[in-house]
Amino acid sequence: MIETDILIIGAGPTGLFAVFEAGLLKLKCHILDALPQAGGQLSELYPKKPIYDIPGFPEVLAGDLVDNLMEQIKQFEPGFTLGERAETIVKQEDGSFIVTSNEGTEFHAKVVAIAGGLGSFEPRKPLIDGIAFYENKGIKYFIKDPEEFRDKRVVIAGGGDSALDWSIFLTDVASEVTLIHRRNEFRGALDSVEKVQELKDSGKIRMITPAEVVGLNGAEHIESIVIDENGAQRTIPTDYFIPLFGLTPKLGPIGNWGLEIEKNAIKVNNALDYQTNIPGIFAIGDVNTYPGKLKLILCGFHEATLMCQAAYQIINPGKRYVLKYTTVSGVDGFDGTRKEAPKAVVKAIV
Amino acid sequence: MIETDILIIGAGPTGLFAVFEAGLLKLKCHILDALPQAGGQLSELYPKKPIYDIPGFPEVLAGDLVDNLMEQIKQFEPGFTLGERAETIVKQEDGSFIVTSNEGTEFHAKVVAIAGGLGSFEPRKPLIDGIAFYENKGIKYFIKDPEEFRDKRVVIAGGGDSALDWSIFLTDVASEVTLIHRRNEFRGALDSVEKVQELKDSGKIRMITPAEVVGLNGAEHIESIVIDENGAQRTIPTDYFIPLFGLTPKLGPIGNWGLEIEKNAIKVNNALDYQTNIPGIFAIGDVNTYPGKLKLILCGFHEATLMCQAAYQIINPGKRYVLKYTTVSGVDGFDGTRKEAPKAVVKAIV
Repeated sequence: MIETDILIIGAGPTGLFAVFEAGLLKLKCHILDALPQAGGQLSELYPKKPIYDIPGFPEVLAGDLVDNLMEQIKQFEPGFTLGERAETIVKQEDGSFIVTSNEGTEFHAKVVAIAGGLGSFEPRKPLIDGIAFYENKGIKYFIKDPEEFRDKRVVIAGGGDSALDWSIFLTDVASEVTLIHRRNEFRGALDSVEKVQELKDSGKIRMITPAEVVGLNGAEHIESIVIDENGAQRTIPTDYFIPLFGLTPKLGPIGNWGLEIEKNAIKVNNALDYQTNIPGIFAIGDVNTYPGKLKLILCGFHEATLMCQAAYQIINPGKRYVLKYTTVSGVDGFDGTRKEAPKAVVKAIV
Repeated sequence: MIETDILIIGAGPTGLFAVFEAGLLKLKCHILDALPQAGGQLSELYPKKPIYDIPGFPEVLAGDLVDNLMEQIKQFEPGFTLGERAETIVKQEDGSFIVTSNEGTEFHAKVVAIAGGLGSFEPRKPLIDGIAFYENKGIKYFIKDPEEFRDKRVVIAGGGDSALDWSIFLTDVASEVTLIHRRNEFRGALDSVEKVQELKDSGKIRMITPAEVVGLNGAEHIESIVIDENGAQRTIPTDYFIPLFGLTPKLGPIGNWGLEIEKNAIKVNNALDYQTNIPGIFAIGDVNTYPGKLKLILCGFHEATLMCQAAYQIINPGKRYVLKYTTVSGVDGFDGTRKEAPKAVVKAIV
């Protein structure tokens, strides 16, 4: 059982920044996210794309914004459970919550903040007979730890940035990389497409296009796949099959927690603290809705900040918190670090 | 008469960022501020101090944040009227407003956004007989254009950072710099105190401490000041006297505009768009108040963003705005520039 003050569901920018604001109030956070890395959409969907509307950044790459936020919060030592999805929630007699993930990990928190963005990202799975049987037996929809593929044979399917970028990356890890796509044309960053062309020409990536994977074989684990090329079928031995056909966000099990939902988003009290209809559960960032809601990262930052104030009141009933400015009071990290503005001196000039 | 879509009163970070969000909606902004430069408190009170709670910046100097915001909005070509204070407002028959400054400049705007921070910064004025007569005749409480002092004699009074920093700066501009303080001890950044000591030692700054300015002489313009050193008085010829005794924020004339005020702040509808009790007038950032209000820069950014959406509806009645993401749609500047993410290519690998 993981104990924490605030369980944050979602490691996107809003969830990450909540750790900072909670830290200023001396509250500990643990973050749970279905994706294998922090950053939410920014890391998963467009890490190399610029964002222009983050205040104070005329331009920032999405991946860099995530790195900056990770740096900003590290002093508050958040816990991370990645690659697991929040499944169930049970309110305890004392008002706290136990949340359980799809892998059975349990989290005990005084406050739950859902920062789930558009929902948890579910992979689009190809319609191949028996594919469910091979999940965790050679089928991977996400790459959590590339080392898993060290000196193994992998087949990647897909025609977008993920398929291209992972094919490139795994040439240095796997013993054999095969890339299969139903068209000859790929859609992605120009330099990724060119790099794959180069790796194909030098024999480091085996390309099979246009083709589709139509069958899977193996007793306990995938041993080979069957591909169809213009009606002709053949079998290719492999240790892993990685279909990268994109992700669809789904609100998922959170939709069954008894929260008021409107158009796939969670209704919150925006006039006060972004709390949901269940006291102690908040929803911040793109996952929430209220009159005039804008799904912008900068709005999530504000919502996270006000949420933390309300969480403080729940966790410290009756205690009054007086806002302190970081420029004036500095920042005390849970790791013992202290940041502060250089102090003014009082000194005679003689 | 200056014509604009949104007149923003206050050039602090909230007011500046409002220009960006308005620009995305193709709305033009003009900014009016009582201080001689943009940035509000950040530029005036603590430009060299770090802020730790701007999302995405583990640490940023207040002055750098202002520079970044100015860079971020320049493509939307905001107008600036600095060094003037909003004095009166008159609502027109068509719902627009005419605001007049203390210097008589008139602004005609469809929407007014008050981003006045803690209020307009009024200098603390020393109690010297006849000082009001010499305002604009040799007495300066703010330094707007240092070139005004080129080859002139200046006397600065004060013991804090402003007095130290301007004394240092003006040694390269004025023909003679005198610094007067009622104590021998100065309070400021260590390097500023040390630099003044050095300039004193090399004869570039004349220091008179402990001393106070007690009289002013001159027919049409200041010609000399009278100082008191432990009871002994003497007269020092000078062209300018610059008392830098700090600033006090005052809500000022805006307090008489018929807006609902609570504890020196303007009440707004935080459940929707941060509009005040007068339709078409909004209050954003530290100047407003609502249940749970936090006077944080990041909250001002959010408030500015939602305000702009409401302003769009007022300025374009009946027109529906669909939120576009800058990463997806790019940013079109009023100056003809365009920023956009590199496009994905569709390219065959053969």
